Amino acid sequence: MVELKHHIFVCTSCRINGQQKGYCFSKESVGIIQRFMEEIEDRDLSGEIMITNTGCFGICEKGPVVVVYPEGIWYGNVSIDDIEKIVEQHIEGGNVVNELLL
Amino acid sequence: MVELKHHIFVCTSCRINGQQKGYCFSKESVGIIQRFMEEIEDRDLSGEIMITNTGCFGICEKGPVVVVYPEGIWYGNVSIDDIEKIVEQHIEGGNVVNELLL
Repeated sequence: MVELKHHIFVCTSCRINGQQKGYCFSKESVGIIQRFMEEIEDRDLSGEIMITNTGCFGICEKGPVVVVYPEGIWYGNVSIDDIEKIVEQHIEGGNVVNELLL
Repeated sequence: MVELKHHIFVCTSCRINGQQKGYCFSKESVGIIQRFMEEIEDRDLSGEIMITNTGCFGICEKGPVVVVYPEGIWYGNVSIDDIEKIVEQHIEGGNVVNELLL
């Protein structure tokens, strides 16, 4: 069994036909993933936090979309500059970032 | 806020460079996603269950990997023929499929 405190999913618009093309991808979602990875590594959280890129969540107009489980928190219109706050306030502090909630 | 009963994630080996290449993809994970979608639609569960394709979970040797949240259940070595059981027993019945657990 895999034991994680949080599992962060970031839409990078992967399609099952192998294309990566879509709104979240066009809005720097790959940079969002990379920024999450840096923050998690810098804070030495990689044993308990996983970051996974995904295909479309079906709400492209609200992208880039980030979903955090097990709590099932959905963030929308996320930018690279929001990542530090999500990690500090939600992942480390346990308090959802209300202004980014969907 | 998005309200889901279960969110099923299936690794299709999407990479953030846009390539879809890897063990889960080579082992028919795209067919696994399609089978999940058929089962969910046939059972009229699409309002409460979401299926999302993902990039690598880092345990390729145990792929294809399927992760179900919010309960955080990880299944490995999943085949297309296992999907009906996962949906019937776990998603509808609430009982984890022990023989597929990681």
